[in-house]
Amino acid sequence: MAGYTATKQDHLRRLRRAEGQVRGLQRMVDEDKYCIDILTQVSAATSALQSFAIALLEEHMAHCVADATAKGGAEAEAKLKEASDAIARLIRS
Amino acid sequence: MAGYTATKQDHLRRLRRAEGQVRGLQRMVDEDKYCIDILTQVSAATSALQSFAIALLEEHMAHCVADATAKGGAEAEAKLKEASDAIARLIRS
Amino acid sequence: MAGYTATKQDHLRRLRRAEGQVRGLQRMVDEDKYCIDILTQVSAATSALQSFAIALLEEHMAHCVADATAKGGAEAEAKLKEASDAIARLIRS
Amino acid sequence: MAGYTATKQDHLRRLRRAEGQVRGLQRMVDEDKYCIDILTQVSAATSALQSFAIALLEEHMAHCVADATAKGGAEAEAKLKEASDAIARLIRS
Repeated sequence: MAGYTATKQDHLRRLRRAEGQVRGLQRMVDEDKYCIDILTQVSAATSALQSFAIALLEEHMAHCVADATAKGGAEAEAKLKEASDAIARLIRS
Repeated sequence: MAGYTATKQDHLRRLRRAEGQVRGLQRMVDEDKYCIDILTQVSAATSALQSFAIALLEEHMAHCVADATAKGGAEAEAKLKEASDAIARLIRS
Repeated sequence: MAGYTATKQDHLRRLRRAEGQVRGLQRMVDEDKYCIDILTQVSAATSALQSFAIALLEEHMAHCVADATAKGGAEAEAKLKEASDAIARLIRS
Repeated sequence: MAGYTATKQDHLRRLRRAEGQVRGLQRMVDEDKYCIDILTQVSAATSALQSFAIALLEEHMAHCVADATAKGGAEAEAKLKEASDAIARLIRS
């Protein structure tokens, strides 16, 4: 069982909101809305995706990473490296 | 006419791809996929939205901003400030 | 003359502040300060650099880009592309 | 002892490089260098600070967070929340 099952509904609600924002962007482009207003909506959609990522990451560290580090050894190190790489991708994207 | 009409189809195609990625995220959460794989997909969706924003911004500067600065005066300044604020929001989000 | 000369002192002041923050980070590492406090200071230094970049970019668009687009043609396009690429690097870094 | 002591020299070396880049930025502004070249250097300095933050965060999770989650309870939760908040600040800055 993945660590995020418990709050799955929260995650899905956030993602549906992000999907709605991306569909809103298509409507804005289609209706020739003003560029600056569209760019503001892009920032909102990006922030929504980041909030989802941060919530998921927190859960992942509380479950998968905590379990692995409790056991220690090579698997703990691999899990930490993997989480750290995912964080690096988010910081740089 | 907004400056981005000419390449509207390009913009819509990028946004539909981002929408597909956000829907893919919902499926991954629903199927309890591994957190790290989901986070990788979040980075991809965020990058797609950023690529759209950068393409739109380039067009906006080439049309609206260039038109305004050609006329000069207070409106040119206002347009530049507005574009700069939108860029700041994207850099910080 | 580069477009940013007029507000050079402002830029230098911002950068000296960022330099002070990066030196503060070295002191914190040297004194084994708590990791989380160091990471908070990294966010502050990064924000200071971004503020400088945004101010410089605004000036660049108001001078170099506006001058080039007033003349039009291939050089205007090249200047816009160049500014847009620099913005893309800042959004993605 | 903070978790990052072991690789302190690595961290200090990265930070001295970032400091050199920020001083380089002051020189570029002072010598009226071309804005776009300055912006490229800002991206480099920001990336150097992010690399430092990611390395420090990885160490923090491997030591402080792993120790706390091994003990469990309220302190483990607090440590995870604290790390997650620091990550969120880095992702959003």
